Amino acid sequence: AQSSVTLYGRVDLSLARNLGTDYMVMQNGSGSRLGVRGVEDLGGGLKAVFNIEHRFAADVGNTGTNNNAANAATTPMWNGRSIVGLQGGFGEVRFGREYTTNFLYVQLAADPWGYDTVAANGSLGGAIDTVRSNNSITYSSPTVGGFRGHFQWVMDETPGNDTNGSYNLALTYGAGPLNVGFGRIDRDDVAEWNILTAAYDFGAFKLIGAYGFGKIDATDVKHRDYHIAATAPIGGGEFRASYNKLETRNPSSDVSSKFGLGYHYNMSKRTTLYADYARDGELTDNKWGFDVGIKHNF
Amino acid sequence: AQSSVTLYGRVDLSLARNLGTDYMVMQNGSGSRLGVRGVEDLGGGLKAVFNIEHRFAADVGNTGTNNNAANAATTPMWNGRSIVGLQGGFGEVRFGREYTTNFLYVQLAADPWGYDTVAANGSLGGAIDTVRSNNSITYSSPTVGGFRGHFQWVMDETPGNDTNGSYNLALTYGAGPLNVGFGRIDRDDVAEWNILTAAYDFGAFKLIGAYGFGKIDATDVKHRDYHIAATAPIGGGEFRASYNKLETRNPSSDVSSKFGLGYHYNMSKRTTLYADYARDGELTDNKWGFDVGIKHNF
Amino acid sequence: AQSSVTLYGRVDLSLARNLGTDYMVMQNGSGSRLGVRGVEDLGGGLKAVFNIEHRFAADVGNTGTNNNAANAATTPMWNGRSIVGLQGGFGEVRFGREYTTNFLYVQLAADPWGYDTVAANGSLGGAIDTVRSNNSITYSSPTVGGFRGHFQWVMDETPGNDTNGSYNLALTYGAGPLNVGFGRIDRDDVAEWNILTAAYDFGAFKLIGAYGFGKIDATDVKHRDYHIAATAPIGGGEFRASYNKLETRNPSSDVSSKFGLGYHYNMSKRTTLYADYARDGELTDNKWGFDVGIKHNF
Repeated sequence: AQSSVTLYGRVDLSLARNLGTDYMVMQNGSGSRLGVRGVEDLGGGLKAVFNIEHRFAADVGNTGTNNNAANAATTPMWNGRSIVGLQGGFGEVRFGREYTTNFLYVQLAADPWGYDTVAANGSLGGAIDTVRSNNSITYSSPTVGGFRGHFQWVMDETPGNDTNGSYNLALTYGAGPLNVGFGRIDRDDVAEWNILTAAYDFGAFKLIGAYGFGKIDATDVKHRDYHIAATAPIGGGEFRASYNKLETRNPSSDVSSKFGLGYHYNMSKRTTLYADYARDGELTDNKWGFDVGIKHNF
Repeated sequence: AQSSVTLYGRVDLSLARNLGTDYMVMQNGSGSRLGVRGVEDLGGGLKAVFNIEHRFAADVGNTGTNNNAANAATTPMWNGRSIVGLQGGFGEVRFGREYTTNFLYVQLAADPWGYDTVAANGSLGGAIDTVRSNNSITYSSPTVGGFRGHFQWVMDETPGNDTNGSYNLALTYGAGPLNVGFGRIDRDDVAEWNILTAAYDFGAFKLIGAYGFGKIDATDVKHRDYHIAATAPIGGGEFRASYNKLETRNPSSDVSSKFGLGYHYNMSKRTTLYADYARDGELTDNKWGFDVGIKHNF
Repeated sequence: AQSSVTLYGRVDLSLARNLGTDYMVMQNGSGSRLGVRGVEDLGGGLKAVFNIEHRFAADVGNTGTNNNAANAATTPMWNGRSIVGLQGGFGEVRFGREYTTNFLYVQLAADPWGYDTVAANGSLGGAIDTVRSNNSITYSSPTVGGFRGHFQWVMDETPGNDTNGSYNLALTYGAGPLNVGFGRIDRDDVAEWNILTAAYDFGAFKLIGAYGFGKIDATDVKHRDYHIAATAPIGGGEFRASYNKLETRNPSSDVSSKFGLGYHYNMSKRTTLYADYARDGELTDNKWGFDVGIKHNF
């Protein structure tokens, strides 16, 4: 029954050779950020919550992903998140710029790298989903018997009220070492994507599998994604491995066949040193990449 | 005799149908913000003060008022305020980007909504004032016998030193339930505006009246504004009502005839739920609008 | 052996007439800023450090140096600094956007004004150095026998790996009242610059001298800088004086002959009132300027 406001953040920088390139760069390993979040107890089990999170490229100190002015100018200041909401026995409702539920509760958990570093498995979204929504209303249910549901409505804000908004949803189930998830996003007149994930923690290691499918609305091109991954706690850090294959049908094409390996060593709860290797067999040239970096949370 | 630095802010989001439009949007009900302010005791009754305040559109997480990159790029980061100053027995002097005194001390207090939400009475500035000044020097007097005066000089920063800057001022008087104010802004070669306000708090409700007049310098078109409003503390919140009529002379035209109603319920000192209705009879179509929202201060 | 995160900043505004202009402006006297920095103890003498520092123009509340949208859009959000690193017995290594070592450890210390106000001695960099580097790796040695060394490598991030990055370095020596420094920056295919400085603190006043030399790579135009300065603690503040002459050879030209005088009075450890005068004899018109301002750190 207490209220709190927290200033938090991360600076994460790596030396990397990206897939498809033949030179080294310094870059964010994951999204460097500065955020403020808070919870206010309103009494009667009700709480007000908020979170605003700025993202920046620590190698150049700019909003966005590099020092290109156009890029920085088109990236919102609070690109990570900008929400206010209410929490209670009914669950939680949040308004504003928020992660899509299929991404946050299903896809993200299936990637050992959490969509970060050169080994990231962004193909878990079929390359046709979206990770965040502006003007969204998100509902997260309480956890009941291991199940939890999430639904997000995205306003279209188009004059005339004659077009529809978009939606996405997530359903997760957890029971001891087992975690299962289903996510779906329907971006009106753009694309739809569905994802099934399952993870089992054997203690010595965790095994993760995922299958995704969807299509682009305009062209009706179908996308399929197959994913298998494992993590293992070794020597004060985490070993990570994954293989992910993204393909299209009609026309049939192998978009990406990505293999990733990494070790993330925890110097402390807040500071991690990491090294990752990735290879995508579908690239015509420079099929491999790597990074070594430091991630510091505060 | 203590020094302090405070991180503070607000996230305010509403679902709204704006006046003159026929569709729903999510938007800021008032300016979402993140600020830092502080007071340092310098001894001998003297204090140093500062305040920087970022404003953002919480629905899209961007600086400025929407997710349009051009809009965000032209909105200053510290759009709300950016000042440093000194306080003492002599009053207070502040330098930087600051509210105009006619707005902050007179017009703002006359609007039950404080220029926020769809029911905002922005016409209290005659649509020819300005709410903030860059490069300004502001002096606020101590309160003497209920009176307080404010004067702001705005530097023109034009080569040659042969043009003048602009100024604005405010004079307020408070005695028990009565509050009276006069404000004037003279934007050199742009426009001038004068505003008179009076408010009386009967306990069960507060009554507010205002009359404003001014003109656009280039065209000599005169603007007149008539305003009456009331607020009442009811059921843990505040009921608000107002009517505001803005007209021009030579040529004579009714610019706006706006009626507003609202109820703002305080869930706590920091969190408010609100609903507002507004109607502007001078609009040719979609004459009404409304919003329901949540405002969370931290 | 403790960890800490600190929110800090500065608002500094002056009324100034800049060199080469004939009108007054309000402007930053030094870089107004908001930053977050922290140190985390990792055990075994090892520490993680980070620092992100936003810079803004307090007169208009915008990122960058004025209210020009293009200027603000091309200035990174964390223009001042954006680094993460590790500290230990070996010294310190930092990654990201960082000051060049020749600037931070040598040039900056030779200017009584620290590159701030109208009296700033920016010519200590020959007008061909750079003050900060993106994508840099910086190593600072421990202090050994009064000596400390710093080296910065700047990645070029150009496809093909066939061009070189840039580097800069600094070597400083301190023994009681004596401080000596040497700095060098080599911006690949752009320019190179070398600087020698010496300062001696006589107690009643401190005397500073510097000599810099370098050239622009493309044109082979040589730059020379001669600098002498003094500071003295007087009446709760600091008196400052300097003379700096920047010239080019082949063709021979006097770029700047700048004389500066100033007094910076400390109202407290955090708040300073200041007045500065500067004159540059090489200007064709409006050879003098001045500023009076207030600098408040928090």
